[in-house]
Amino acid sequence: MEKRRQVKLEDVAALAGVSKTTVSRVLNNRGYLSEATKQRVHEAMEQLHYRPNAIARQLFTQKTNLVGLVFPTVNDPFFGQLEAGLDECLYENSYRTLMGNSQNNPQKEEQYLQLLLNHQIDGLIVGAHNQAMPDYLQTNLPIVSIERAVAPQIPVVASDNYRGGQLATQRLLDAGCQHIIHTNYPKDVMTTNQDRRKAYEDLMSQAGYPAITYEVNYDTPMEEKKAIFARLFDEHPEVDGIFADNDTNAGLIIQVAKARGRRVPEDLKVVGFDGADGTRILFPELTTVQQSIDQMAAVAVNLLEQQIAGQTNVESVTLPVTLLEGTTG
Amino acid sequence: MEKRRQVKLEDVAALAGVSKTTVSRVLNNRGYLSEATKQRVHEAMEQLHYRPNAIARQLFTQKTNLVGLVFPTVNDPFFGQLEAGLDECLYENSYRTLMGNSQNNPQKEEQYLQLLLNHQIDGLIVGAHNQAMPDYLQTNLPIVSIERAVAPQIPVVASDNYRGGQLATQRLLDAGCQHIIHTNYPKDVMTTNQDRRKAYEDLMSQAGYPAITYEVNYDTPMEEKKAIFARLFDEHPEVDGIFADNDTNAGLIIQVAKARGRRVPEDLKVVGFDGADGTRILFPELTTVQQSIDQMAAVAVNLLEQQIAGQTNVESVTLPVTLLEGTTG
Repeated sequence: MEKRRQVKLEDVAALAGVSKTTVSRVLNNRGYLSEATKQRVHEAMEQLHYRPNAIARQLFTQKTNLVGLVFPTVNDPFFGQLEAGLDECLYENSYRTLMGNSQNNPQKEEQYLQLLLNHQIDGLIVGAHNQAMPDYLQTNLPIVSIERAVAPQIPVVASDNYRGGQLATQRLLDAGCQHIIHTNYPKDVMTTNQDRRKAYEDLMSQAGYPAITYEVNYDTPMEEKKAIFARLFDEHPEVDGIFADNDTNAGLIIQVAKARGRRVPEDLKVVGFDGADGTRILFPELTTVQQSIDQMAAVAVNLLEQQIAGQTNVESVTLPVTLLEGTTG
Repeated sequence: MEKRRQVKLEDVAALAGVSKTTVSRVLNNRGYLSEATKQRVHEAMEQLHYRPNAIARQLFTQKTNLVGLVFPTVNDPFFGQLEAGLDECLYENSYRTLMGNSQNNPQKEEQYLQLLLNHQIDGLIVGAHNQAMPDYLQTNLPIVSIERAVAPQIPVVASDNYRGGQLATQRLLDAGCQHIIHTNYPKDVMTTNQDRRKAYEDLMSQAGYPAITYEVNYDTPMEEKKAIFARLFDEHPEVDGIFADNDTNAGLIIQVAKARGRRVPEDLKVVGFDGADGTRILFPELTTVQQSIDQMAAVAVNLLEQQIAGQTNVESVTLPVTLLEGTTG
């Protein structure tokens, strides 16, 4: 992993053409300073992608014990469990959490990142699913990403999504399905979910069957998702197996299928993905690929702590997945 | 509703024995100030339960456009949908949200409230379920509570929980159940959920049946909850109907019942409470009392906006509930 460049207070002072003491005064809002000087220092900080807190930490090893989370939503069994798990692990390590939901809105994601950075956090854990990478991640703040490749120097905690895609597809092939359809995000969404699709396509190709993926975005309204799944059955009446990229989509597909008179698993086998605790309570019959969500949270907090402690070679971690055998597929 | 006392900047200045200008300087960290003066002003602010931001707003009508949320967890279909809804409504009204999970830990709740108040928020929406009322609510910050009576002057947004309890219990009575058991929080948890229990007890009494409630705390670990429900079947083998205080408990009860060879609804009828969107996707067969969760979020944001706009007579709001007829009860 690339070592982050350690920009020093001197760099800010040099670029602004002022003394280190002046930079320190601007940061701490102490003593008399002309507006012109303040502006020069702020511009230098901005140019160097520097945050007051990062500098303050270097100068005084001041910690705020505050960690920001930016994820798409909390209204989801996977993200709900993940964010609750992160919050719990952070609390055990004496951190408090501030959460921001991006709702798949790149503008909102940037605003939350900016907001959290302004509140002098010690670190950031991100898992928003936007296409574009926010400029604000060009900071030297400790950052961990979950299930999303954000930037080369930011460690990622992810499930073995390729293996998960293999387990789900193989399960349907073993059950005798020949017309298996997959659902996933559009290809331009930069999430490790895409590895599930890759595994599906590879296994289908090896088995000599066509691979067909219906693209469903995370934030598509529920009724629209149902319409996409209805179209799936219209366009592919031969479908006998579906590998859904998450359990919520699996649930919706089963509802749409049943409303069309299809019996699950007799006429149609369905395998989901995620296996969150909340889903296992409400729908234990669902066959699904379970991610180690609590472990994911614990590992992410650990990687963040390593960075906060000053380590620069923090490695990405891939976690195992398990097939949970239910009765739907 | 009781009018909140409008403490003025003068009060802080008078108590600290300094001029208004000095208080303003302390607040904005401008000009030279002795440590002794700063301390006097901060002590006066603390004694008057005053927050810099509240004063700053009065002086300059400065808004931070930041609203804090404090709820037990996001790992729950009800709270997940509610917090996502609040976040969406707040975003539409140009606010950003900072979330803190209390996880039913009073100390954690206080820490989050303190943290959020220190970050100069414009308002707070709370729904934590702790026994004790935090001191930090003795602030003049705009606050709205959801499903919890916090303090007389704080408006509450709640479902018509008594009506919900009636609908659920009546449904089971109409289906011929004679041995109906209820689950709810312990009685000392100050939530409006208790009204569901009251309705259950009233209807059972009217029908001439005993009312039996098994107490399950929100943060009880899942395996422990299952053990409580197993005990319920051991101690009351005659049970033929269960009114669960939330859909997650209903799901767990159905799992425990099925594992003991009970058929639902033939041998045991189960009615839940909440009807969150996520639950409806995964478990559409569950008969449940649906709360208007999205409306709850919209109303709470509206009541908060009224307070931020300076209104002092903001009334509590009760929202209707609906029985969703599934096949479990």
